[in-house]
Amino acid sequence: MSDNFELQKIDGSARAGILKTRKGEVATPFFLSVATRGAIKAGVDGDDLQQMQAPVLLANTYHLHLRPGSERIAQMGGLHSFTGWKGPILTDSGGFQVFSLQRKKIQDHGVLFRSHIDGAEIFLDAKKSIEIQNNLGADILMAFDECPAGSLPHTSTLSSPEKRQKKLYFKIRTAVERTTQWAKESLEAHFAQWDKKLSPLERPQVFGIIQGGTFPDLRNKSLQEITALPFDGFALGGLAVGEETSAMYEVLDQMTSQMPSQKPRYLMGVGTPGNLLEAIGRGIDMFDCVMPMRNARHGTVFTHHGILKISNSAYREDTGVLDLECTCPVCAEKKYSRAYLCHLLRTGEILGQRLLTIHNLSFYHQLMRTAREKILAGQFYSWKEKIFPHITKTPPEAGKKGEEKTKD
Amino acid sequence: MSDNFELQKIDGSARAGILKTRKGEVATPFFLSVATRGAIKAGVDGDDLQQMQAPVLLANTYHLHLRPGSERIAQMGGLHSFTGWKGPILTDSGGFQVFSLQRKKIQDHGVLFRSHIDGAEIFLDAKKSIEIQNNLGADILMAFDECPAGSLPHTSTLSSPEKRQKKLYFKIRTAVERTTQWAKESLEAHFAQWDKKLSPLERPQVFGIIQGGTFPDLRNKSLQEITALPFDGFALGGLAVGEETSAMYEVLDQMTSQMPSQKPRYLMGVGTPGNLLEAIGRGIDMFDCVMPMRNARHGTVFTHHGILKISNSAYREDTGVLDLECTCPVCAEKKYSRAYLCHLLRTGEILGQRLLTIHNLSFYHQLMRTAREKILAGQFYSWKEKIFPHITKTPPEAGKKGEEKTKD
Repeated sequence: MSDNFELQKIDGSARAGILKTRKGEVATPFFLSVATRGAIKAGVDGDDLQQMQAPVLLANTYHLHLRPGSERIAQMGGLHSFTGWKGPILTDSGGFQVFSLQRKKIQDHGVLFRSHIDGAEIFLDAKKSIEIQNNLGADILMAFDECPAGSLPHTSTLSSPEKRQKKLYFKIRTAVERTTQWAKESLEAHFAQWDKKLSPLERPQVFGIIQGGTFPDLRNKSLQEITALPFDGFALGGLAVGEETSAMYEVLDQMTSQMPSQKPRYLMGVGTPGNLLEAIGRGIDMFDCVMPMRNARHGTVFTHHGILKISNSAYREDTGVLDLECTCPVCAEKKYSRAYLCHLLRTGEILGQRLLTIHNLSFYHQLMRTAREKILAGQFYSWKEKIFPHITKTPPEAGKKGEEKTKD
Repeated sequence: MSDNFELQKIDGSARAGILKTRKGEVATPFFLSVATRGAIKAGVDGDDLQQMQAPVLLANTYHLHLRPGSERIAQMGGLHSFTGWKGPILTDSGGFQVFSLQRKKIQDHGVLFRSHIDGAEIFLDAKKSIEIQNNLGADILMAFDECPAGSLPHTSTLSSPEKRQKKLYFKIRTAVERTTQWAKESLEAHFAQWDKKLSPLERPQVFGIIQGGTFPDLRNKSLQEITALPFDGFALGGLAVGEETSAMYEVLDQMTSQMPSQKPRYLMGVGTPGNLLEAIGRGIDMFDCVMPMRNARHGTVFTHHGILKISNSAYREDTGVLDLECTCPVCAEKKYSRAYLCHLLRTGEILGQRLLTIHNLSFYHQLMRTAREKILAGQFYSWKEKIFPHITKTPPEAGKKGEEKTKD
């Protein structure tokens, strides 16, 4: 048992545990609520998060550093004080956003890019990323890594698949090498600020990120190098970036069998409810993804009985709730019918986006809590087999694209 | 004392009373919360309204008839069941929206217009308006009226001010005549559906609307004709449509001195906090306006110490709350600083619009409750004189347009 993670039960490869931070304990597996700019999109507030028992907030270093500025946030007492969120906050390293920019210059020691807001030139490296994350007051910091795309750009002039694959391999190998170097620099920067003797409950924790795309040897190399470093937890990056789902699951199988069992394992940027169950079944403890929120804003709703496209005209007179098995305020208190939510979505009322975001996020958190219960009871896989086809089902109505556009 | 209104106290011309409806009693003066399409904009929900003690919801006949359709709402049990709102609901007649459309054909018996959604031709008259409002399940219906603009269009070719004024006079005189005719038809349509012997607490109520622009003789004519009809309350329409504020106050002085004292008085579409206090001081009991919501979405905040433009860079590091005297959840629980709200507004996060809408609406409702207390205590006017300069003050920062655009 490590200081910051208590592994309570292993059911096959699935794990139930407790992640301990300076802002409290969190039961695993869990899903992070993504508050990119210090707020959940569509007007979801702190009370909503509390009501859905959201355990940990994720904020984005890149966005907050640009606006309102990480030093400004530091002056005002950090993100907890700024946003009013009292639980643990995890920040990403900013790398993922920066590497997604069109205009950037990746160098061995860091990345030069331009702010999408005012075009100002900004340099980001491991030291700077850790400094920003500590300014933000994060409880869990992510090491600065290079997250390359899972495939070459379509504009690549290499026509042969072998040549393309080879070029991708070398690109990802370079990223793996930089990621290891930057991981060391991240730890160095963090422990220049925080006394190494402090327990991980007395200081912010730092998680390392394993890269390597879908190349087993590169994944292996990254895993060996990153897990050799004294991180408080380990994340898998560079997945769900365009590769096949089956390839992602293969990487998970390869990785989790070798990752330290006494540290939390975080799969970054994943995914659908089905993806989450598959990943938990392979030994992952933590997830984040914008999907439940983004889908909600577009009217796509996750339920225990399948995925609904609530703006579909089929729901215009449906007085039932979204999901009878759901305990969220939108469903459980039966205040909001599918017909009303359909109306709000079709008329563009923000309230619709807000209520669906609350529902979808709640659905994810409930799914994690139930998964945990099932692991603790040693029934994870049988439960997963049973629930999987239901939660991933797309009802026939969702396909009626023509119908959906019907004017009412 | 009439069946639906209890006048509790008169302080000068200001009135405190109780409006009684089939969905409960409401203390006057009060402000209606505008839920145009069955939802408050910016994601404010029923729990928020309950928390701010919002007494009555206003929904728009025009918008709801077009989408999702008033018959569909009737089939689903009316607006209360559809929206989840349990208190009284007032609906407008649809006239105001229809008369605001560019493409419409006003006839003596009604208005022909095209839906802004799909271009379908729709005819609206008193009978149809009342039928729609009853389909929606309104507790207070508004008679169908003609609300002409307070001035001629700028494109009018009449150059002489006298000619313009004369033309406007004849336009408004026609509107007054039609409004009286339509008022009678509205009552007839309503009591074709509801037994006249029912008390106003057992059936939906209907309010008549007085028109006449700022022409004293036309206002007088409309007042005499409308108040002669057996309405449950009387509204002043055709104000705050472009005329000078002083002209509006003159109309109020003229009207409220003659309106039946035993019926509720509703000033439609007004206004700023200052306008509300002036109108209460002239004997008005009810108001509605989109201003607190619309201003909130643009970052303009009403407080007990003046009007703030919260997106102004002056607030980027202001860790104080919006308004120390405010009891709304945004202010009273001190969770949200001006700096955070400024950040949310500047980054376009919906949460900012939502929180400011909650604050502004709460501010209006608080102002009405305090006005009532002061009337009951016989201190309305001295309180109004004291608070007026504070709540209408525009701080110097709000004028710094250049500063406001500064990139951060």
